[in-house]
Amino acid sequence: MAPWTLEQVAPHNSSQSCWVIIRNNVYDVTEFLQEHPGGAQIILKYAGRDATRAYEPIHPPDALDKHLHKSKHLGPIDSDAAYAIARESENRQKTKDELRVEAAQKQRPPLSRLLSLADMEAVARRVLSHKALSYYSSASDDQITYFENARAFSRFFFHPRIMRPVSKCDPSTTILGYKSSIPVFISGAALAKLGHPDGEVNLTKGAGTTGIIQMVSSNASLSYEEIMAATNPQQPLFFQLYKHSDDAIAEQRVREVERLGYKSIWLTVDAIVPGNREKDIKSPWILEDIERGTTVYEGSLEAVGGDGNVFGTAGALIANDDRDMTWEKTIPWLRSVTKLPIVIKGIQCIEDAVLAAEAGVDGILISNHGGRQLDFSLPPMEVLYKIRQQRPDLFDSLEVYIDGGVGRGTDVIKALCLGARAVGIGRPFLYAQSAYGAPGVVRIVEILQREIVTAMRLLGVKSVKDLGPEMVERVDWLPRSHVKL
Amino acid sequence: MAPWTLEQVAPHNSSQSCWVIIRNNVYDVTEFLQEHPGGAQIILKYAGRDATRAYEPIHPPDALDKHLHKSKHLGPIDSDAAYAIARESENRQKTKDELRVEAAQKQRPPLSRLLSLADMEAVARRVLSHKALSYYSSASDDQITYFENARAFSRFFFHPRIMRPVSKCDPSTTILGYKSSIPVFISGAALAKLGHPDGEVNLTKGAGTTGIIQMVSSNASLSYEEIMAATNPQQPLFFQLYKHSDDAIAEQRVREVERLGYKSIWLTVDAIVPGNREKDIKSPWILEDIERGTTVYEGSLEAVGGDGNVFGTAGALIANDDRDMTWEKTIPWLRSVTKLPIVIKGIQCIEDAVLAAEAGVDGILISNHGGRQLDFSLPPMEVLYKIRQQRPDLFDSLEVYIDGGVGRGTDVIKALCLGARAVGIGRPFLYAQSAYGAPGVVRIVEILQREIVTAMRLLGVKSVKDLGPEMVERVDWLPRSHVKL
Amino acid sequence: MAPWTLEQVAPHNSSQSCWVIIRNNVYDVTEFLQEHPGGAQIILKYAGRDATRAYEPIHPPDALDKHLHKSKHLGPIDSDAAYAIARESENRQKTKDELRVEAAQKQRPPLSRLLSLADMEAVARRVLSHKALSYYSSASDDQITYFENARAFSRFFFHPRIMRPVSKCDPSTTILGYKSSIPVFISGAALAKLGHPDGEVNLTKGAGTTGIIQMVSSNASLSYEEIMAATNPQQPLFFQLYKHSDDAIAEQRVREVERLGYKSIWLTVDAIVPGNREKDIKSPWILEDIERGTTVYEGSLEAVGGDGNVFGTAGALIANDDRDMTWEKTIPWLRSVTKLPIVIKGIQCIEDAVLAAEAGVDGILISNHGGRQLDFSLPPMEVLYKIRQQRPDLFDSLEVYIDGGVGRGTDVIKALCLGARAVGIGRPFLYAQSAYGAPGVVRIVEILQREIVTAMRLLGVKSVKDLGPEMVERVDWLPRSHVKL
Amino acid sequence: MAPWTLEQVAPHNSSQSCWVIIRNNVYDVTEFLQEHPGGAQIILKYAGRDATRAYEPIHPPDALDKHLHKSKHLGPIDSDAAYAIARESENRQKTKDELRVEAAQKQRPPLSRLLSLADMEAVARRVLSHKALSYYSSASDDQITYFENARAFSRFFFHPRIMRPVSKCDPSTTILGYKSSIPVFISGAALAKLGHPDGEVNLTKGAGTTGIIQMVSSNASLSYEEIMAATNPQQPLFFQLYKHSDDAIAEQRVREVERLGYKSIWLTVDAIVPGNREKDIKSPWILEDIERGTTVYEGSLEAVGGDGNVFGTAGALIANDDRDMTWEKTIPWLRSVTKLPIVIKGIQCIEDAVLAAEAGVDGILISNHGGRQLDFSLPPMEVLYKIRQQRPDLFDSLEVYIDGGVGRGTDVIKALCLGARAVGIGRPFLYAQSAYGAPGVVRIVEILQREIVTAMRLLGVKSVKDLGPEMVERVDWLPRSHVKL
Repeated sequence: MAPWTLEQVAPHNSSQSCWVIIRNNVYDVTEFLQEHPGGAQIILKYAGRDATRAYEPIHPPDALDKHLHKSKHLGPIDSDAAYAIARESENRQKTKDELRVEAAQKQRPPLSRLLSLADMEAVARRVLSHKALSYYSSASDDQITYFENARAFSRFFFHPRIMRPVSKCDPSTTILGYKSSIPVFISGAALAKLGHPDGEVNLTKGAGTTGIIQMVSSNASLSYEEIMAATNPQQPLFFQLYKHSDDAIAEQRVREVERLGYKSIWLTVDAIVPGNREKDIKSPWILEDIERGTTVYEGSLEAVGGDGNVFGTAGALIANDDRDMTWEKTIPWLRSVTKLPIVIKGIQCIEDAVLAAEAGVDGILISNHGGRQLDFSLPPMEVLYKIRQQRPDLFDSLEVYIDGGVGRGTDVIKALCLGARAVGIGRPFLYAQSAYGAPGVVRIVEILQREIVTAMRLLGVKSVKDLGPEMVERVDWLPRSHVKL
Repeated sequence: MAPWTLEQVAPHNSSQSCWVIIRNNVYDVTEFLQEHPGGAQIILKYAGRDATRAYEPIHPPDALDKHLHKSKHLGPIDSDAAYAIARESENRQKTKDELRVEAAQKQRPPLSRLLSLADMEAVARRVLSHKALSYYSSASDDQITYFENARAFSRFFFHPRIMRPVSKCDPSTTILGYKSSIPVFISGAALAKLGHPDGEVNLTKGAGTTGIIQMVSSNASLSYEEIMAATNPQQPLFFQLYKHSDDAIAEQRVREVERLGYKSIWLTVDAIVPGNREKDIKSPWILEDIERGTTVYEGSLEAVGGDGNVFGTAGALIANDDRDMTWEKTIPWLRSVTKLPIVIKGIQCIEDAVLAAEAGVDGILISNHGGRQLDFSLPPMEVLYKIRQQRPDLFDSLEVYIDGGVGRGTDVIKALCLGARAVGIGRPFLYAQSAYGAPGVVRIVEILQREIVTAMRLLGVKSVKDLGPEMVERVDWLPRSHVKL
Repeated sequence: MAPWTLEQVAPHNSSQSCWVIIRNNVYDVTEFLQEHPGGAQIILKYAGRDATRAYEPIHPPDALDKHLHKSKHLGPIDSDAAYAIARESENRQKTKDELRVEAAQKQRPPLSRLLSLADMEAVARRVLSHKALSYYSSASDDQITYFENARAFSRFFFHPRIMRPVSKCDPSTTILGYKSSIPVFISGAALAKLGHPDGEVNLTKGAGTTGIIQMVSSNASLSYEEIMAATNPQQPLFFQLYKHSDDAIAEQRVREVERLGYKSIWLTVDAIVPGNREKDIKSPWILEDIERGTTVYEGSLEAVGGDGNVFGTAGALIANDDRDMTWEKTIPWLRSVTKLPIVIKGIQCIEDAVLAAEAGVDGILISNHGGRQLDFSLPPMEVLYKIRQQRPDLFDSLEVYIDGGVGRGTDVIKALCLGARAVGIGRPFLYAQSAYGAPGVVRIVEILQREIVTAMRLLGVKSVKDLGPEMVERVDWLPRSHVKL
Repeated sequence: MAPWTLEQVAPHNSSQSCWVIIRNNVYDVTEFLQEHPGGAQIILKYAGRDATRAYEPIHPPDALDKHLHKSKHLGPIDSDAAYAIARESENRQKTKDELRVEAAQKQRPPLSRLLSLADMEAVARRVLSHKALSYYSSASDDQITYFENARAFSRFFFHPRIMRPVSKCDPSTTILGYKSSIPVFISGAALAKLGHPDGEVNLTKGAGTTGIIQMVSSNASLSYEEIMAATNPQQPLFFQLYKHSDDAIAEQRVREVERLGYKSIWLTVDAIVPGNREKDIKSPWILEDIERGTTVYEGSLEAVGGDGNVFGTAGALIANDDRDMTWEKTIPWLRSVTKLPIVIKGIQCIEDAVLAAEAGVDGILISNHGGRQLDFSLPPMEVLYKIRQQRPDLFDSLEVYIDGGVGRGTDVIKALCLGARAVGIGRPFLYAQSAYGAPGVVRIVEILQREIVTAMRLLGVKSVKDLGPEMVERVDWLPRSHVKL
């Protein structure tokens, strides 16, 4: 079949017949429109023409192969068409937001001058596109839980011990048996390509260089295979599973990552429906206003994402996920399809921590999804503290991790004192890879390692095993938080 | 009798003989001056001339029929007079405040872009007249209770449960046996016409469309009949009773609404005298200053409203209400004049909740009148929490509702977890109808429904019956409130 | 002896021979220099010339008669001298601060538009001279206690009762047996003439008009006789005693006021040395900087007031007071010189309240001198609360009052609920008399009366006797205070 | 040997051969490069040329004699070279920061107008060089502990007692048996020359004049001998020991100060590794940016100080300190080399206070190094409060001091009420000597003495022995702190 001309593609610009061009190939997505997790509308915007620039940053390269039947892959466009698209892309006038980002990129300070995770976030907030920043930084409703996650750490103070030998000090630990140079892992987070063209691979390389472990999201913007291909020998990867509502499709995903060599499955249970991330939802409208100075969007709330419960970038990603998981059904099913260790990601109260232990999983990640799901979910540090006080036996049954709001090495140490084995960090790594690629990721680990070792030494311990609950105290006053009121 | 000329009306411009023209009819209000709840002074300002523009937004259409003897209805003006008044109205120079409102109206965002009740309030604050905003938004003294009502919710955090099937989720409930699509009703609030020419009917239509229930205030700016006329078949209305100090007049009012088909009586007990709403009282002075740039008002405090206890818009509305109600006398009286269910609106402590249960009423609305009455009255959410802890048996004796400070679906869910059957919302509906009419009201319900369903699913429940006190915790630290310090 | 010429007075301009002219009379103060409570330096600034303008606002008219031996009253100046002084005074260029005050005076709003004590303070802060505002508003150190006095009230919330007859509501009470129209008295405060030429008499007239009681300070800027002369028949006055270190002089003062008809003695015990009121101390320097744009003062800390413990306006006033009072010695002494009721002003903890009861005094005023003495003294409302909880029997032994930080009628009611018989108010009355004279004082009482009656009615009580501790609750969260953080 | 010419020195400008000129003498530091606590890089910047200006403010005069072998002292430069260096120094263009400081120096207010420690800090912040301010004011991480140290005092309120004789009031005490005019000492702090050319001697003279005691840091910028030489007869000095990791070198230091007449050894145990003082670390980069308007530094984190744990000014000072001290080894060793009283500086929890008492030391200084070491270490005032509540017996075993965050006389009194014998103050004295030399130090003591005496009198005590825990109360609400949120 001869390559397609633009003129041939152009008429297929409606829901009756909808073709799009992606990376110089033509696809018939007419039937797929209704299945698209992000809704038909966003595809129809590009019907009959090139959609590459919108498609690329939020889809892994194997998405078309996985989700669109071969018969709908209509083949390449001809060279004139490719040339025209390239020229158009070249000549396209940059948006105000793109120009702002370009200018900010040039003014990035050298990595060596960033001394803290806050320094890194400050740079990232300047160099990220409006869309990416909105997606990465947004949290649900009034962002109370997002801010409380961080503020919770500031209620815990130390009882430092003196006169203990600490010249030698080792911050390493193991997670599910795998060595980690510091008690920190990269928590699963979607769509790294939104912030940097190399996407999740920046995280993989940074983790490999520094000896920490990356948890890869089901919603990564690269294929699981590409990410695995970027590892060092012996570098473990974990997999964050968003379970599809269709068990067969879900099983296929688990078997794929097990085959690729992923070392554990982190079943995500706190994001069965999307949280209300207003900043993310409003982002396209605000961008429009920025670019044109006028307001044109006229869609209804329903139009944003389909059924009133799915909207925003996040909504699209999890539209097909299983909203009816149960302890009785889902854990046995998962055990039946994989021998990998299983961790439940998204425990938010003691009762469910107990149920997880009873279900025999290997670990739990106390998490409220970084404040992106239910606003007023308790901060993980508070839940951890409750478990330490009321059910300390749980720490013997499984490994306990927390994520959300960690901003300093002292935060990590506080969690470890209360019994956490390791701490997950998400946004800071996304910010780092967006602003500096893999070296940014390495820098985050360097900063944390220095802060962790300093805190350990000043606490009088030389190994993470020596950290204990007697070393922290939850104070009964309101400290001047490092997160401003 | 021949229609009146302006020249005939003009001389009746004093307290000796005071005539006014309203909607092209002449009324002799000389004797009525002393009975007018808003005081004589405000009428005398229009003595001998047309008063329609001042009269309309704060009086229901049947007010003259109800309160002024037929013999004082002097008949219509002639066509020259009507023409002159219309021309004068037409040529009247708009005030600065009116011009500001007109400009703001044109810049309203499309409803679809409002994602929260806060978004709606932000629009309303721009498009409302100074007078209306002052009346709607004002609260008493330093507005501590007004702000604390909202902040109280932010001290309650969730214990979300995972691994529970929630794909099907139903937020509906019943109130006094009447179905409500979400556990929210429109709390009684006066003077909707101040914000929008269609007034309370906007609320009625919005409630009808979305399947929730409206409580109509005794002080509505439309007649109870007009409001009832705007309902769908089967759409219930509740009635908020301000009891007149004269039992006979009060009985007449109750019998009227029962006859019209209202379904329950909500006896208001927390507003026997007006609260000190300084913003409302100061509004005319500030408006004057805005318009003229000078200060002309020279009245004394007493002049504002008569006896030192009645002033401001609110004062006028309740000037004749009963300040000597008692449990022994008032409830039996009310039972004797109606068979409708009775709810006490304005319970503010456990002791009175108990007395209400003992008095055998059908429900209580824990409320401090939106912070408009006694400043430093406890937030309803705190009173509800106390009842849950000290007298949980009360929830079996009667239905319990709260209002005041509700701003998010999570607030609604928190109240339901503690035992509330439903939650009343007032100001947000007034803001919505003012800014967008009935569609604004619909939008508020859409937003709340989405937030409520999302919160229920993320809590792991699929029916309001499954919400319980074990799902919320009152934290012992000060959270970053969604209402700023 | 012939009247003095300016030329004759001028050479007496040093500590060797120091004469000053006051109200056209010459005084030899050479020997008095060392006794002057405000220090010699301030007098020497005017040596050999007219001192009237500096002398007047801070000394009562009988000060020269009382404190300077007759032989040092050298007689009048001649008419040329009087003319020259008057001309100089006339031609004197007004200072920037005086011009600012004059402009502000013209822009005062009409009294009827002031609705709260905060409104009054806002006006006063504009129309007061820098010196007067510094003296009135200053508090010690970092003003923590000053602000906490007010914030303490905001931790107490009400349990309002409904369905109680309140159409009749009486806010009056008695203090030491004397009728007061509201449970509020004017707490003693010095130097009213600094703010208004009529000084303390404004307070007397305002109290007389409204039926409340004034406590007159030992350090009033008018004579005790002048103030008594301004009362209505039957209007009682109380006397605030600063006890002189010389018992004989102190006795003379007590006997004078008893003779004049004052009704009780309020012994001040919390101001034996001056607090560190930096704003007051810095005031002259700042004024200098304002006027000249340069800094000229070069004195040392000691020079400010003598011995390192006495400085600022306050220091001068109490320089000779008794720093060695004891329960054993001072109360019996006072009982021996007067039959008037005795109240201890300045109780700051339970232990001393108990000792006062044991000493048999008639009342105690829980007070930390408006935050002007020891910073971090507990707020009176907290001390009152402690007594209510730990020693409720004390309320049967003597009358208990509090002052400090009262800004609303609800504050008054809260104190009464906990057992206070009445509440003292100081600064607001000073501000009111400064800005509007006696009518300002009346306005303050009108405002408080309205707020008190409204609060009583909304609480469900019709007499102050019905207020009780069950009607207030000390909350365990941090409310949005009406005093900003 | 003939004096050196600049031409002869210049070629030695690399790590192969590195000579520097200091105060007109040439030193061969090639071998010393690797031993330099501040790293080789900073020396190499001046290799082959004059380094005096960088060297002087941070090294005591005897540093070269102590740390560089005599054979490396190569002798003087010739007069042409000295002349050239002097001319270059003269002609050197002043930096923007130097010009700013010069201007600020001219605008200092007279000392007599500074009424509080906060006033002094405000002046110092203007007149200090960027480098000095960064070093003095910086604290670790987010400076939570730095701010909490001060805020902790604001949670303690007084129970003032009245009717007690206080005309005579003596604030003096003894510390380790040595008389102190007020219960305050100068806590050890390094590098006074950074702020003022006379350095630590300003503190010595100020302490001598006012009768308080100075603790001299191991890292003083003058020699221990020079400082001792500035004392009055009978003026005691204490010595703050940073123990070298080499016991022999450490012993030498202890024996030196004992020989010089220092009266006690304060072993510093909370600074075995440097805290993360970002402001200090970033200071040179920020200065560069200020001076050039461009960013040139390209070093990595490691380059800042060597091994990732040593960096900033602080890092260099303690690079060789003992990180393996223990109770078992270190205290007996110290007892074996000196008969002087021993105090442990840096106790941060009850457990270590107990161990110190068991180890038989003479005193403990509860301190977290002014918030410069482990962020979230508890404020000393809180630790003191815990000891008072849980182990009051310790106050009988040894003398207890605290430092960190003291800003007012009331802070001192609060600590004494809880059992502290005296309170150390660091930064305020550094600020005072920087801004005004020795008279600034005197002023600080004058201010504190006045505040302490005033507080004692208003509390009803006339001797520090009469202060007790019943006079303070830790409140359960959040006061308006004198340190802003």
